[in-house]
Amino acid sequence: MGSVSTDEAMRRAIALAARGMGTTSPNPLVGCVLLDPRGEVVGEGFHAYAGGPHAEIVALAQAGERARGGTAVVTLEPCDHVGRTGPCSGALIRAGVRRVVLGVPDPNPVASGGVETLRAAGVEVEIGVRAAEAEAGNLAWLTAVRRGRPYLIWKYAATLDGRIAAADGTSMWITSEAARIDVHALRGTVDAVIAGVGTVLADDPRLTARNLRNGTLAIRQPLRVVVDSDGRTPVDARVRDGAARTWIATSAEVGTGPDGRVDLPRLLAELYRRGVRAALLEGGPTLAGAFLAAGLVDKVVGYLAPKLLGAGPAALADAGPRTISEVIDLEFTDFTPVGPDLRVTAFPRKTEG
Amino acid sequence: MGSVSTDEAMRRAIALAARGMGTTSPNPLVGCVLLDPRGEVVGEGFHAYAGGPHAEIVALAQAGERARGGTAVVTLEPCDHVGRTGPCSGALIRAGVRRVVLGVPDPNPVASGGVETLRAAGVEVEIGVRAAEAEAGNLAWLTAVRRGRPYLIWKYAATLDGRIAAADGTSMWITSEAARIDVHALRGTVDAVIAGVGTVLADDPRLTARNLRNGTLAIRQPLRVVVDSDGRTPVDARVRDGAARTWIATSAEVGTGPDGRVDLPRLLAELYRRGVRAALLEGGPTLAGAFLAAGLVDKVVGYLAPKLLGAGPAALADAGPRTISEVIDLEFTDFTPVGPDLRVTAFPRKTEG
Repeated sequence: MGSVSTDEAMRRAIALAARGMGTTSPNPLVGCVLLDPRGEVVGEGFHAYAGGPHAEIVALAQAGERARGGTAVVTLEPCDHVGRTGPCSGALIRAGVRRVVLGVPDPNPVASGGVETLRAAGVEVEIGVRAAEAEAGNLAWLTAVRRGRPYLIWKYAATLDGRIAAADGTSMWITSEAARIDVHALRGTVDAVIAGVGTVLADDPRLTARNLRNGTLAIRQPLRVVVDSDGRTPVDARVRDGAARTWIATSAEVGTGPDGRVDLPRLLAELYRRGVRAALLEGGPTLAGAFLAAGLVDKVVGYLAPKLLGAGPAALADAGPRTISEVIDLEFTDFTPVGPDLRVTAFPRKTEG
Repeated sequence: MGSVSTDEAMRRAIALAARGMGTTSPNPLVGCVLLDPRGEVVGEGFHAYAGGPHAEIVALAQAGERARGGTAVVTLEPCDHVGRTGPCSGALIRAGVRRVVLGVPDPNPVASGGVETLRAAGVEVEIGVRAAEAEAGNLAWLTAVRRGRPYLIWKYAATLDGRIAAADGTSMWITSEAARIDVHALRGTVDAVIAGVGTVLADDPRLTARNLRNGTLAIRQPLRVVVDSDGRTPVDARVRDGAARTWIATSAEVGTGPDGRVDLPRLLAELYRRGVRAALLEGGPTLAGAFLAAGLVDKVVGYLAPKLLGAGPAALADAGPRTISEVIDLEFTDFTPVGPDLRVTAFPRKTEG
């Protein structure tokens, strides 16, 4: 293999990083490519799971002596703290790496400092190569660490006219099996799934990530969180089964917000403390409205079924706006057909915090 | 130019036919390509406007003597009646055309009979070349003639959560200027625009097809129809201005349906009698619900804005379904970004009639 540019190596490192999706939390996705002094790739690695070796360590192990005098291309600033795996900054210095090229600085106050340590040891550091791509690849984690709360994705499924159930409350199924399979894949990428007690009482969902065809559970299950101000979750609710961990978050435990219900910023802070970096908010309309009204939603994923009801509960309630000038502005970033349905992805236009 | 197959000629004829979009009503879109005996194109034509020459006549005029012994490729069965332009069947026979290849038979009992007349005169007739494409190109007109009522397109504009206005009734604007320009182009393709009196009272719309940038009216304006059971349209409503013809359709004039309001099938029958073949239903939610409940909607065009309201009137009301099994099933056929918004196109799955 011939020599590659650091730009090419960064593209490769970003692709490597993505392989850890769903298993690295509470750690970020990180990819690393090591180049020898002539620019040939001599090591590659990514962070595969929390507790496992960091991307740089994997790549250094592969490169061995060939890393000496070379360049480490890393998607995120190498960590500087003695966590479960020791600081990567020291490992790079010890391996004799001459130059480190990184995509995004680490916003985590505990882990950052890698750049200073490297420079103090005489290693040349370049920051911001393919920064936008590196940032996008780690968007949830970076946002979570910067805000000190989980990156929150609001997911809903509705008819084209915005209903999540018929007038009599029946709703199975609005969207297709293909869309529901897509939702289970989405659950597999987050650390927690959040639902309101109203949804639990109405639909008795499992809130697990599983294979819909045969019911097999994914190996890693998100924490199931029921926002349940008054503790009304039935003892025999499916969400309490043994398939995954569950937290029934009551006002008594979390605290009460201005609306008299569970304090949502404190709920998210507690989830962050428990290691949750990305969370999927699955309903219902009132809980989604409360999170949106508080500016706590980072991404919207809607599954729209080619169906019309003309009556029944809407996908969203009490989100704040009373008049058109107060509308919550989003930006569409993706439209993908999923079976007969349409999946739309959108981001809030004004980012808070 | 070398010789072309009748299949290629039909593809060209279908493309020619589409050029008449918006100006041929109550006539269909028709395109014609004439081939000489060696298969070379010697004439082309399309029906450009009602009262103007039919596609076959235009193509024959161009071909002159070269049509003799040749083939006429026509998207729709040539007419057989002495209307404003005389029967095309006779003109083709007189020109000495040996063979006629057509896409779709004419369902119009007044105009059909062309095939029989041609065959009686010894002309060979082939039916059904690129039939699906020819049908699709004339879908609105064919559907209207088969059902004896206008082809009805329900158009709405809503937030991602299905609201057409905020809780206080304000709605300007939910969708972008780009989407509104798209709606005006859509109005330019239909013969009538239908709205309920509620929409007239709430928004005082003009319901004209115009250039939104400078206000210039399109040359051809659809008939403005206000469904107004009790005749509540104000005398100074914009919809009554001189920019286009307007019909305030009251129960007294049209008749009363089972819901005590304007009888919708009779309304559509009357519009058909007045030459309306394609109509755009623009609101509000209750009128749309009534048309949908009656199975009278042929196509749905929704403009979804990347916005959330969480309160306010929904795009659709009282459409019939009370429980999920009664949901109105559609099929998505197109998703097109229009400025920041998304235009979705869908068709009812069960076609009636």
